[in-house]
Amino acid sequence: MRVVTFGELLMRFSTPENLRFSQAKSYDVYIGGAEANIAIYLSQLQNDVRYITVVPDNELGKTALNELHQWKVNTDMVKSQGQKMGLYFLEKGASARGGNIIYDREGSSFSQIDEFTFDWDQILEGADWFHWTGITPALSKGAASACKSAIDAAKKRNIPISCDLNYRSKLWKYGVDPKEIMPQLIENCSVVIANEHDVVNYLGISPQNKDYKEVKGFGMRCYEFVSKAMAGQFPNIQYVISTLRETINASQNRWSGILFNGTDFIQGDVHEIDSIVDRVGGGDSFMAAFIHGKLHFNEDKKVLDFALEASAKKLSIQGDYYILDND
Amino acid sequence: MRVVTFGELLMRFSTPENLRFSQAKSYDVYIGGAEANIAIYLSQLQNDVRYITVVPDNELGKTALNELHQWKVNTDMVKSQGQKMGLYFLEKGASARGGNIIYDREGSSFSQIDEFTFDWDQILEGADWFHWTGITPALSKGAASACKSAIDAAKKRNIPISCDLNYRSKLWKYGVDPKEIMPQLIENCSVVIANEHDVVNYLGISPQNKDYKEVKGFGMRCYEFVSKAMAGQFPNIQYVISTLRETINASQNRWSGILFNGTDFIQGDVHEIDSIVDRVGGGDSFMAAFIHGKLHFNEDKKVLDFALEASAKKLSIQGDYYILDND
Amino acid sequence: MRVVTFGELLMRFSTPENLRFSQAKSYDVYIGGAEANIAIYLSQLQNDVRYITVVPDNELGKTALNELHQWKVNTDMVKSQGQKMGLYFLEKGASARGGNIIYDREGSSFSQIDEFTFDWDQILEGADWFHWTGITPALSKGAASACKSAIDAAKKRNIPISCDLNYRSKLWKYGVDPKEIMPQLIENCSVVIANEHDVVNYLGISPQNKDYKEVKGFGMRCYEFVSKAMAGQFPNIQYVISTLRETINASQNRWSGILFNGTDFIQGDVHEIDSIVDRVGGGDSFMAAFIHGKLHFNEDKKVLDFALEASAKKLSIQGDYYILDND
Amino acid sequence: MRVVTFGELLMRFSTPENLRFSQAKSYDVYIGGAEANIAIYLSQLQNDVRYITVVPDNELGKTALNELHQWKVNTDMVKSQGQKMGLYFLEKGASARGGNIIYDREGSSFSQIDEFTFDWDQILEGADWFHWTGITPALSKGAASACKSAIDAAKKRNIPISCDLNYRSKLWKYGVDPKEIMPQLIENCSVVIANEHDVVNYLGISPQNKDYKEVKGFGMRCYEFVSKAMAGQFPNIQYVISTLRETINASQNRWSGILFNGTDFIQGDVHEIDSIVDRVGGGDSFMAAFIHGKLHFNEDKKVLDFALEASAKKLSIQGDYYILDND
Amino acid sequence: MRVVTFGELLMRFSTPENLRFSQAKSYDVYIGGAEANIAIYLSQLQNDVRYITVVPDNELGKTALNELHQWKVNTDMVKSQGQKMGLYFLEKGASARGGNIIYDREGSSFSQIDEFTFDWDQILEGADWFHWTGITPALSKGAASACKSAIDAAKKRNIPISCDLNYRSKLWKYGVDPKEIMPQLIENCSVVIANEHDVVNYLGISPQNKDYKEVKGFGMRCYEFVSKAMAGQFPNIQYVISTLRETINASQNRWSGILFNGTDFIQGDVHEIDSIVDRVGGGDSFMAAFIHGKLHFNEDKKVLDFALEASAKKLSIQGDYYILDND
Amino acid sequence: MRVVTFGELLMRFSTPENLRFSQAKSYDVYIGGAEANIAIYLSQLQNDVRYITVVPDNELGKTALNELHQWKVNTDMVKSQGQKMGLYFLEKGASARGGNIIYDREGSSFSQIDEFTFDWDQILEGADWFHWTGITPALSKGAASACKSAIDAAKKRNIPISCDLNYRSKLWKYGVDPKEIMPQLIENCSVVIANEHDVVNYLGISPQNKDYKEVKGFGMRCYEFVSKAMAGQFPNIQYVISTLRETINASQNRWSGILFNGTDFIQGDVHEIDSIVDRVGGGDSFMAAFIHGKLHFNEDKKVLDFALEASAKKLSIQGDYYILDND
Repeated sequence: MRVVTFGELLMRFSTPENLRFSQAKSYDVYIGGAEANIAIYLSQLQNDVRYITVVPDNELGKTALNELHQWKVNTDMVKSQGQKMGLYFLEKGASARGGNIIYDREGSSFSQIDEFTFDWDQILEGADWFHWTGITPALSKGAASACKSAIDAAKKRNIPISCDLNYRSKLWKYGVDPKEIMPQLIENCSVVIANEHDVVNYLGISPQNKDYKEVKGFGMRCYEFVSKAMAGQFPNIQYVISTLRETINASQNRWSGILFNGTDFIQGDVHEIDSIVDRVGGGDSFMAAFIHGKLHFNEDKKVLDFALEASAKKLSIQGDYYILDND
Repeated sequence: MRVVTFGELLMRFSTPENLRFSQAKSYDVYIGGAEANIAIYLSQLQNDVRYITVVPDNELGKTALNELHQWKVNTDMVKSQGQKMGLYFLEKGASARGGNIIYDREGSSFSQIDEFTFDWDQILEGADWFHWTGITPALSKGAASACKSAIDAAKKRNIPISCDLNYRSKLWKYGVDPKEIMPQLIENCSVVIANEHDVVNYLGISPQNKDYKEVKGFGMRCYEFVSKAMAGQFPNIQYVISTLRETINASQNRWSGILFNGTDFIQGDVHEIDSIVDRVGGGDSFMAAFIHGKLHFNEDKKVLDFALEASAKKLSIQGDYYILDND
Repeated sequence: MRVVTFGELLMRFSTPENLRFSQAKSYDVYIGGAEANIAIYLSQLQNDVRYITVVPDNELGKTALNELHQWKVNTDMVKSQGQKMGLYFLEKGASARGGNIIYDREGSSFSQIDEFTFDWDQILEGADWFHWTGITPALSKGAASACKSAIDAAKKRNIPISCDLNYRSKLWKYGVDPKEIMPQLIENCSVVIANEHDVVNYLGISPQNKDYKEVKGFGMRCYEFVSKAMAGQFPNIQYVISTLRETINASQNRWSGILFNGTDFIQGDVHEIDSIVDRVGGGDSFMAAFIHGKLHFNEDKKVLDFALEASAKKLSIQGDYYILDND
Repeated sequence: MRVVTFGELLMRFSTPENLRFSQAKSYDVYIGGAEANIAIYLSQLQNDVRYITVVPDNELGKTALNELHQWKVNTDMVKSQGQKMGLYFLEKGASARGGNIIYDREGSSFSQIDEFTFDWDQILEGADWFHWTGITPALSKGAASACKSAIDAAKKRNIPISCDLNYRSKLWKYGVDPKEIMPQLIENCSVVIANEHDVVNYLGISPQNKDYKEVKGFGMRCYEFVSKAMAGQFPNIQYVISTLRETINASQNRWSGILFNGTDFIQGDVHEIDSIVDRVGGGDSFMAAFIHGKLHFNEDKKVLDFALEASAKKLSIQGDYYILDND
Repeated sequence: MRVVTFGELLMRFSTPENLRFSQAKSYDVYIGGAEANIAIYLSQLQNDVRYITVVPDNELGKTALNELHQWKVNTDMVKSQGQKMGLYFLEKGASARGGNIIYDREGSSFSQIDEFTFDWDQILEGADWFHWTGITPALSKGAASACKSAIDAAKKRNIPISCDLNYRSKLWKYGVDPKEIMPQLIENCSVVIANEHDVVNYLGISPQNKDYKEVKGFGMRCYEFVSKAMAGQFPNIQYVISTLRETINASQNRWSGILFNGTDFIQGDVHEIDSIVDRVGGGDSFMAAFIHGKLHFNEDKKVLDFALEASAKKLSIQGDYYILDND
Repeated sequence: MRVVTFGELLMRFSTPENLRFSQAKSYDVYIGGAEANIAIYLSQLQNDVRYITVVPDNELGKTALNELHQWKVNTDMVKSQGQKMGLYFLEKGASARGGNIIYDREGSSFSQIDEFTFDWDQILEGADWFHWTGITPALSKGAASACKSAIDAAKKRNIPISCDLNYRSKLWKYGVDPKEIMPQLIENCSVVIANEHDVVNYLGISPQNKDYKEVKGFGMRCYEFVSKAMAGQFPNIQYVISTLRETINASQNRWSGILFNGTDFIQGDVHEIDSIVDRVGGGDSFMAAFIHGKLHFNEDKKVLDFALEASAKKLSIQGDYYILDND
């Protein structure tokens, strides 16, 4: 099946072996970004994946694209222009100490896109799925416009659209209120990953105390409120997914997820994860596996559990994306 | 005491720091092989150890032998001939992801031995113990013949013989049924480590449901069946040892073992092992310590617990063999 | 606030990635020493810290001082003389295997100090706190004399004095009984960290069975006996601190502490610490945070818990000292 | 332009930082093989490159293919079968010490191919060039047959064929005389890289003293004899290329080449190369650039000098293949 | 003597061991920037050095400042504000391949300074020298204004001012012509390093063919033209320095310099430099040593040769700045 | 042939990849010491080598001995006692920067030996050669006594004795004049490596201007004076060897040597050595090869050239001793 994902490609610098930034004399380099992570995993699952982004026209941009080629992701429609690679710096957590992330992506080549950067009709030709995330419209006005164009083109072709809503307070710095932008983008999606921050910031609705209830092993959660708010406002949405993560310490997490299919709430398997290798990309691995599941076997509980297992296994892999265990 | 061990020396390439094969730009090199691991540990315990193998006549062969010299294992009877080093590639497990092993030992210098390669009378001169494993006859017809010669020579001299039966389905590719080879080799052994796969594949006997019973912390086990099958068929066997390993995840194991001395079943201490550094060689460390125990203090429970402790501690050591903590 | 700490600066060589000494082809280099660790952390907490030591007059000495400069510790009064850097070699524990430490500090430049080496009046000018440890008088007769001079000068100026008594049987090799030296040094301290080994070896008093009682999660302890022995003998002491550490395995510890303020015993929070990165310096981080707490907010329970949290978090940091998490 | 190359993909393990095999505790991993090196460079030069090989059906095979994907080489027609990856071990030379290479490729998945393994008509569809080397028929009878099939299919389609004749005495172990195999393979080639060893071993003709003459900076050479022998015997050959390499020491080489176009001998630029980073693949970089030159600008002297420059620059790159300097 | 330097602090990421960007899985981290490099070397020479910059208010900024503290450079007047660290990526040259540098400093915290950012009267209190470079006004209009303020304040106090004019075509992107900015900044300098690019771009004067003459070992040079143009236009200038660098290959350079003191041209020693370790910062080491020479021994030829030797020796040091060889 | 060598075993810590001490966060560990280096090379040349030393009774001592075992050097007579390993710290030179060495061997386990530490009659049983160096008597009075005992025992058995006289001004700190010690030790030697410092410091004779003459490529040398002074004073000496080394820069040396056999001066081959990997141990490799040559083929010019080639090749090897190139 052909899947198109769209978003910023990032280069990550992380300190080796539990070192703090101030201690490291070298940083390990990884290539990632939510939508690229999803593209890479879907390609490993034998889907025909096209990834859309802009990288700077220099050796860093080329190096980043090489990583996608390695996994046979199609980058023919990627633009190489501008001079700035999106970067982030990561100090992984360890023991009683949490992780630390520093973004350096403002003014990146990608953030300078607009509605005319890509020819979405050509890009979406033959596509069976389109995926984007809430990170992209948070980067710049032009990036939000590019999302709109992409979603409109996908909608026109009746291509299923998924979105990890993923509100991040550190972004959205360009002077608009997410509530003015996001609803028209979410409107045409059929699958969303959402949590209460998304509802609050994108829809302006806040859960009340009564909206929370205990989920065993995960404390007080308001996934019903979130799911119904989303599904209520956007009739095109077929699935609202709530991921559940409980951090015991930097090396130990409990993960699960709940899916609302418009009728039922289906809880997935619970994974107790010890000795975490790298937390980054767990959610992206979930999303990729969910898309794959929907395209290939399409039974709610089975799809959800497949996605949760991918998500749990990702945490055993260094870097931003999951590497399939073929053997 | 003088101990002789015999088997293939292997060079291991393992990916560093939790990386998958596809991520690693360098592989760590270790020297191992079940019988070499045992030789090295026994030498550290101040035994006079002679190791018998064939290595290729090149720098890899020399490098591998250097490792044994480092631990003062005698390699004077080792042959350097042929061109191919036995290799294996290891991706250690981590968190929710299991390990992955790839062998590249077919056609190795060692696998081309036969009954005329070694002068066993000279080799076993003055020996107090001889050890081999079920891996060697699985490699080639000639290797099986060499085992036969060695065992016969040891038997003739009344040297105690131990064997880790260790059936591996990935080997035995040279066109004979293990059942035609192994019984005549096991026949003269006095100590064997055995499990149900060994009984099934070497003796052609399968445990039934009734043969399994719960071992606390280790689930359903059939060690009584295995032990009695072995001891019943081979009157020379004095000890049948069943090791118990329960994998909680890639970093956490529970280990123990049960010994059958022809009369009683003696259960050893249970070790809860966290934060495993390297799983390889845990069984070899057990075997080496068991041999040492038998040669030096010889009380069943004490020997078994000494072996289990060595086995548990090995898992804290990088590489294939145990390094004694002298201080 | 201005704090002065005094003691030997050490260079540490530790084997990388769980390797044993006999396996490592490179050793990681860290700079530490109890009093330097405390200086560095207090400087990060925005105190004005002066560190007093002697380093050899060579590149190793300069390299070690650079580390203190990096954290803005004042070293203007440090002497560079002699030729020998104090060293220690560390093999960290892992899984079922404990750590291993080898000191090479005998005859070091620092150990050759005496009461004339430093001008304590100049050093203590404007100081709000002075800290030393029981390691220094254990190194040489001259080092003990230097401690005496320092403490007398601090006392004269009414500067609060703290000491981690820290009896170590491997030191005290220069032919005096600690009981002849330590009481006159402890006498003028206002804060001490003490345990039963300190009481036995410095005061010659031994706890009896009845002096031990169960501390939940930490087994039988005699902190009341220790605290009262210290406070009873030395009226200047305002706080006797007992740290509690329970080693579950090399990666898992339980830490807490109890403070005696002359009136009450106050137990601090209990920290369950998993996936320990580096055990060294946990106690020094505690001491530094305690001093900071006393100087800045001074409420017993709050100071103790602040110190325990610093101590627990230190174990997540590579190297000998804590690096504050500013972000 | 579309180019097809065919040959064995190799995994290389080389010791880091001038270490001898016996010193290295890790080996750096590179992917190479003459024909893959050429494929990767031609792809970087924006040709549409298809690479044909067999890799084992395991993670090592997948890892090796990933490297080709990274550079956008098409591997759709590669077969994954068998269990053995072709390997080689490399100790680079340094100062007065030469390099050392150990092959471990006997019995590899690739060596087990035969004339039925590949569908050459499909593979060569639309191809503008086909490249193979003398290494492939040297591996096994089946590999020689596969070469024959490929060359015949290319000839049938009038696709230009190039070959680096590259006689290696360590290969050709399977019991045939190269003179029985090679002439019929060379016969249909239009471009060959040849030297006197190729003439002696493939054609059975030996140069006499009179056939050697001084080439300035390169000593006595017999390139005229070689070129005329080749061109004389095989009328389809349009170019015989003689590369010239003079080793001053392990870090310093002089490189050039001479081309015979049937009429003239054209000498290329001479490159003095200092501080060599990695000697492997210099000839492959030459061959790739030569093919590119013939396909794109086709003037003998210009093509030759372009190829020589690529060759010289390769020696500044770690690993087996050239990485184009785009900036 | 007290020296103040002012400019952007940069974090450098360079590929290890001759790797290309596309090959490296980790990048080595160094801290540098022309003016910081000078500050660090002058501090090692026992000057009292104050460094003025802006770093982002995050862990990268703190890490960068730590490097200056390590060398006892005073950073009390540094501002921590904004979010973006100035970065550059470096691929060192090797053998026949030149180096490659990618800047990522646009929009950095430093580039957002203006004439009100620093209190220059306070900063220059007691200063004996002030140093800036042509890189700073090239970054932004505000940065140029900050330079102007600094220079005016220094002039007012009669503090000698030096500048490495250092025109870079990749900078000056903010929409002004350097000729409108630089003359008024150069006007008050007493020492400048200048070359023909500076004259062309800052003064609008171009050398003619007749202005070039052969400098032995360095080809055709126009240093007389440059020096006289500078000294002619700006009467405050006492020294115009022309550095001479001849690149033989990436590992071998020839370096020298010529000083014009208003009367004479004095040529410095010529250094033949082999096996270069790191080319970055050679000029900064020259500048620092020149300033030190002027402040401490002040004889033209001696100062020049001292500076050239520092410059040559820097190329043997990893990283951006010189580390004095004390022993 | 059986060779005995005697001296201190050292652990070396050297900074990786051209780093200065102040930059390195890890130090590479090597095992060496002049006499151990000789033992290891002679063992590789298939001699039966016994090495005599004292190592501390801890893991560092064991680790150091393992290195000798690796090369099959017999250490059965080595003593493990005391607590201090002899150490040295090395910063290799690079480009225009020379190397830097810091010793930390004072008070080492070895330096505490005396004439009763070893049973020389047992040690020298069956020996064909005994080797010591001038470093040992320079360490302590006891070490000088131990040398005396060893030499006397060897003399008594008519075993040829060689010595690298190797005067080092940094040693001889224990309060005696070398002239009181060395003559009686040299007296019984048959082969010495000597230079003018040895003659001056051991014999109290200084060369005059007239004693120097030009040696082509090596400047002014006084080897005739040295040789005749040595041979004149000590009639047992059969060979005085003068090594010639000319340092062009840290990476480039010219090496040769001249032998005086009592009659003739024989000059060896001159080696131009580029791209030096590690300078340490070049002289030891020379000495070892000279001993081997004398024992096995014994023709002056041939022995000298064999030794010079080993010496030149050593400089291409990391670490303290030569590793034979077997392939």
